[in-house]
Amino acid sequence: MFSHRHDLIVEWGDCDPAGIVFYPRFFAMFDAATASLLEAASGRPRIRLIEDCRILGWPMVDTSAQFHAPVRFDDRVSIESRVTHVGTASFAIAQRLTRGETLCVEAMEMRVWSIRDEQDGHIRSQPIPAWLRAALGVKA
Amino acid sequence: MFSHRHDLIVEWGDCDPAGIVFYPRFFAMFDAATASLLEAASGRPRIRLIEDCRILGWPMVDTSAQFHAPVRFDDRVSIESRVTHVGTASFAIAQRLTRGETLCVEAMEMRVWSIRDEQDGHIRSQPIPAWLRAALGVKA
Amino acid sequence: MFSHRHDLIVEWGDCDPAGIVFYPRFFAMFDAATASLLEAASGRPRIRLIEDCRILGWPMVDTSAQFHAPVRFDDRVSIESRVTHVGTASFAIAQRLTRGETLCVEAMEMRVWSIRDEQDGHIRSQPIPAWLRAALGVKA
Amino acid sequence: MFSHRHDLIVEWGDCDPAGIVFYPRFFAMFDAATASLLEAASGRPRIRLIEDCRILGWPMVDTSAQFHAPVRFDDRVSIESRVTHVGTASFAIAQRLTRGETLCVEAMEMRVWSIRDEQDGHIRSQPIPAWLRAALGVKA
Repeated sequence: MFSHRHDLIVEWGDCDPAGIVFYPRFFAMFDAATASLLEAASGRPRIRLIEDCRILGWPMVDTSAQFHAPVRFDDRVSIESRVTHVGTASFAIAQRLTRGETLCVEAMEMRVWSIRDEQDGHIRSQPIPAWLRAALGVKA
Repeated sequence: MFSHRHDLIVEWGDCDPAGIVFYPRFFAMFDAATASLLEAASGRPRIRLIEDCRILGWPMVDTSAQFHAPVRFDDRVSIESRVTHVGTASFAIAQRLTRGETLCVEAMEMRVWSIRDEQDGHIRSQPIPAWLRAALGVKA
Repeated sequence: MFSHRHDLIVEWGDCDPAGIVFYPRFFAMFDAATASLLEAASGRPRIRLIEDCRILGWPMVDTSAQFHAPVRFDDRVSIESRVTHVGTASFAIAQRLTRGETLCVEAMEMRVWSIRDEQDGHIRSQPIPAWLRAALGVKA
Repeated sequence: MFSHRHDLIVEWGDCDPAGIVFYPRFFAMFDAATASLLEAASGRPRIRLIEDCRILGWPMVDTSAQFHAPVRFDDRVSIESRVTHVGTASFAIAQRLTRGETLCVEAMEMRVWSIRDEQDGHIRSQPIPAWLRAALGVKA
């Protein structure tokens, strides 16, 4: 399955009074990592993917995370995002955030390819285009 | 001019490794305080105000802030928001964040009453309804 | 086990371009809800609890969340936080965020009562004081 | 004076229901840009600079910003940070965020080189080391 690496520096504003990343910030990092993976898999900028596919986005429906080692201000970390499942209208991503050889955070995400229903304004699932399903299923 | 008070507790995630509020978080607090003032002045929930007036919102065009005293985790603070100017399509708010008698942060905001132009998708200013201009100009 | 309710208004800055809460923000809300529960159970302000117990805090080690229904700007929501496990140095909280009768988000948290080791600067677990374990285990 | 460029992608979580950057997020971007400038000027990673100089950081004391053009999800933007003043214990930075040729946001920052007083725990200003003052005053 497709995988993608996203590198980043932990900024001051990501950290809490204990001097470590405030854990909700990891989810924001993972969200950006997934957007970056979709961009790499589809070959289109994030916004182009949304506009071309006429979708609302890929909202999260289920996620979990384990925090194995603290991550601190100025740590240079990598997020390895790997597709683990591609369904008709949903896909799963496994996230691994590492600092050098140390695995710091692991997470699992289940997201749904979604549109806004013009009739009632509700958010509904939509089949992922075949070409993108194929791209996500491919080894990077 | 109309003024409104908004009380809050400084949460762990608002603070940085120095143990004080990460300053961008103050702007998020002020944004919520302004929404709360508009709600009080208009007598309608935030979303009702936006829907009733068919606007996009009240984006910021100019702001400044002075940080006089550090604010820490668990501090119980008050934000006093006061309208200082009401123009045709813009309004200014002065924010004062205090902890007890101590003035910690002062800020000024200039915002524009805005719609999204259906033709080109651009954000444009829109006259503030007369009844709301009157309400904002009134002493609370 | 102890439970506690925390009410809040969904602010503009909590929401994303789809008009719904950006999911990492839910974790920040849950973090504040847990702090509020600890305050209610212990009878002390958050900072007093940390200082009195000479701890660093209660960092997250494992969390998961399911997003059942979208939450939008200005929604008035309640978070019901319930202790589901109290161990020697860890505790678990179940979070339920509702809007009226609608269950929007469920989450599980496992946290560790932690100190900073003066020798090496590492974060280590620490037994939860007996009085607090008792308070957390009590029906609210 | 020293200047430095910091490029970034506007992420989904930076944006609000109007589809534009929630303005407090710009301040977080500017905070990271200033950290990046200090790193470039000093030739040391952010954390090394703090540890080597035995400081707490460079908290903001005064800032202002003007928002000239909306910035949207997936915009590829550059922040040009330029030192405009270096005092004994403070320094000023001018920030310009651009998307291509368009100037979107301008900001001014005044920050104080700060330590934590071991006696009373208060945050106090501290002279900026001569070598860093020299580095900040140099044309990049």
